[in-house]
Amino acid sequence: MSQITALETFDLRFPTSRFLDGSDAMNPDPDYSAAYTVLGTDDDGPDGHGFVFTIGRGNDVQVAAIEALRPFIVGREVEPMLADLGDTWRRLVHDSQLRWLGPEKGVMHMAVGAVVNALWDLRARREGKPLWRLLSELSPDEIVGLVDFRYLTDALDPAEALELLRAAEPGRAQRTADLLENGYPGYTTTPGWLGYDDVKLARLTREAIADGFTQIKLKVGGDLDDDVRRLGIAREICGPDVRIAIDANQRWDVDEAVRWVKELAPFDPWWVEEPTSPDDVLGHAAIAERIAPIRVATGEHIANRVVFKQLLQARGTGFVQIDATRVAGVNENIAILLLAAKFGVPVCPHAGGVGLCEAVQHLAMFDYVAVSGTTTDRVIEYVDHLHEHFADPVRIERGRYLAPELSGASTEILAPSVAAHRFPDGAVWT
Amino acid sequence: MSQITALETFDLRFPTSRFLDGSDAMNPDPDYSAAYTVLGTDDDGPDGHGFVFTIGRGNDVQVAAIEALRPFIVGREVEPMLADLGDTWRRLVHDSQLRWLGPEKGVMHMAVGAVVNALWDLRARREGKPLWRLLSELSPDEIVGLVDFRYLTDALDPAEALELLRAAEPGRAQRTADLLENGYPGYTTTPGWLGYDDVKLARLTREAIADGFTQIKLKVGGDLDDDVRRLGIAREICGPDVRIAIDANQRWDVDEAVRWVKELAPFDPWWVEEPTSPDDVLGHAAIAERIAPIRVATGEHIANRVVFKQLLQARGTGFVQIDATRVAGVNENIAILLLAAKFGVPVCPHAGGVGLCEAVQHLAMFDYVAVSGTTTDRVIEYVDHLHEHFADPVRIERGRYLAPELSGASTEILAPSVAAHRFPDGAVWT
Repeated sequence: MSQITALETFDLRFPTSRFLDGSDAMNPDPDYSAAYTVLGTDDDGPDGHGFVFTIGRGNDVQVAAIEALRPFIVGREVEPMLADLGDTWRRLVHDSQLRWLGPEKGVMHMAVGAVVNALWDLRARREGKPLWRLLSELSPDEIVGLVDFRYLTDALDPAEALELLRAAEPGRAQRTADLLENGYPGYTTTPGWLGYDDVKLARLTREAIADGFTQIKLKVGGDLDDDVRRLGIAREICGPDVRIAIDANQRWDVDEAVRWVKELAPFDPWWVEEPTSPDDVLGHAAIAERIAPIRVATGEHIANRVVFKQLLQARGTGFVQIDATRVAGVNENIAILLLAAKFGVPVCPHAGGVGLCEAVQHLAMFDYVAVSGTTTDRVIEYVDHLHEHFADPVRIERGRYLAPELSGASTEILAPSVAAHRFPDGAVWT
Repeated sequence: MSQITALETFDLRFPTSRFLDGSDAMNPDPDYSAAYTVLGTDDDGPDGHGFVFTIGRGNDVQVAAIEALRPFIVGREVEPMLADLGDTWRRLVHDSQLRWLGPEKGVMHMAVGAVVNALWDLRARREGKPLWRLLSELSPDEIVGLVDFRYLTDALDPAEALELLRAAEPGRAQRTADLLENGYPGYTTTPGWLGYDDVKLARLTREAIADGFTQIKLKVGGDLDDDVRRLGIAREICGPDVRIAIDANQRWDVDEAVRWVKELAPFDPWWVEEPTSPDDVLGHAAIAERIAPIRVATGEHIANRVVFKQLLQARGTGFVQIDATRVAGVNENIAILLLAAKFGVPVCPHAGGVGLCEAVQHLAMFDYVAVSGTTTDRVIEYVDHLHEHFADPVRIERGRYLAPELSGASTEILAPSVAAHRFPDGAVWT
């Protein structure tokens, strides 16, 4: 039997703050980073790759948390572990001592996500399939077995989940064919960073439309006059049909959010993203009710499936923005996809950063093929940053993500990029 | 001007799993641990001490997170920093890059708590006062200045907080005198660990009553038959007047919690602690409504003030169990005390572990003197573990915490204990 023989970690940082890429109302100067992990085996098989996205300082802490999981992984037999990733997930998330450090949130939970995603990459490579296809070919029973329903059963139990998945089963083949032919819709945040001036905003908005995107997103929440002016510029270029989402990155309290959004309502925002603290379920629900019919969107900082459950129960969000590396990996995101399907709320993944587009596209495509069965009002975020560092970078055509064809989870970072961006000793930092 | 010149960290672990002290339904074999930090200055003044309590594995990750805060602390001038700990708190919690690792939750947030608490210990020592007295002598304006009201204003704004504090001001002297004379009520969890057999449970329950405690707590949630039997034993010994709280340590989903508690209701539990996930505000609210008049209690795993706010808004908890090291230190706990006072919910601190009794007693006493102004239905948890390792251990008489008299926050661990319990090289581990 083959064993996992190595869990390597890397503190990789990209100096994005030098150009204000990624600047918003809460994150003025991020250095996009990855706490990257590679799992190796003692057979001739491929490695497995996973990571947590962070924005600079503290990426070393994230790496330390991944290191803490080595005893759970190294020395284990590969095939039984990959064959029952539901059990593997539970062993990692519910270790009674490590659990204290969250529970199920923050650095330790995201570390589990990196390792779980690396295991999924490993499995998909060994099966010779892209992850979205591997997941889409699992039976409803196998999918349900991947999910931990603890704390979810007041909203969704295994029987209901099975029913949802079985209902979607007959259409899988047709939707897979559609995905392979037409890809999955995307939207772009590239024009809208707060650090860009009006000329750059206008130019990038025009380019986005020319590139075929039918939705863009603008960062807001720094200064209301600026937001009004910038949204005016964007709406004039977009016309009435291209959707403009706005993103406050948790800048507001409840009343402030409502006041600010009402000032921006004349520009017809498609959604208002992260209006307040990601922990504030009741705050989101209050905002959603008061700004309707404009909808709230959130998810990139939602710690786990339990908070997503509540946001859906309370009607606190109109879009579920899963993130590939915030929660404990593929398994927990499947739980969230099932919850979103149960409540009929569209999943529009958060992406950008380092490799988030690469990682999350697989989940959105699996959702389309095997869970929700639709792409209506569904879009994957796209940001044109840092894809060149990945072995299987996303491919965008006419504003749509093409389905990955290589085996794995698209989470492998190229060796020269790893070497150059190691902090603090890589060439980029010395 | 004096400067902070050192931030030292220590991974301290106590082998409590060898005796099943601290065993409950979710934590079968904890090794109580402290990610301990000591701040030093370049004058002749005292050091400042703080820590995060964990239960073993991952304590090294917690230490790494405290280390990540060194650049924010070392090299700073002592007096301006200690004079405006509200500003210091904001700089630590809202650092835009570190914030990504939570935000405001988990390992990184608790690390801020350790450093903030060490700064408070330093300040109290330099002022020659125990922390509870230092806090109780601040003006209402100074106290409000310590609190970050971001995300709280839909429940409590600075003006309301000021009003609460001013209303409590006239009684401060009288309550301080009462505290010095009579101490603060405690309750004990010592009898009720799941790992203890019935004989030990009965013996320790009798001892608790003989020691003057008027409330004990039993761990539940492992096996219903066991719980019924154990609660029966305890109730028979306690009679009708000694309160028995029960603690499920997050073991249940919503329906399960309600069913289980109804089975235990004949034994008149005073509160049901942590019935489900600490993130599940709506779940707590549903349980609270369905098991009334029995009340829910929670807090030791509540990540931050935003979740406490919602638990109070949703009437999801009947007791607020602050923890000295789960949130970002003294300042955030003051925010939570103010929220509890606003909603009229009793604060009953979580303690035990390593040094949690020592640390949290100061906050409960401050609450009594300057915030809520009452000890009715308020009790600080007490567990008779590991106090011998502290320079200023808690003193319990007739079931009450005596007010600390030494200057500081009672967070200093004795040097021989530090040396012996360092993991993995201390004498206890080699």
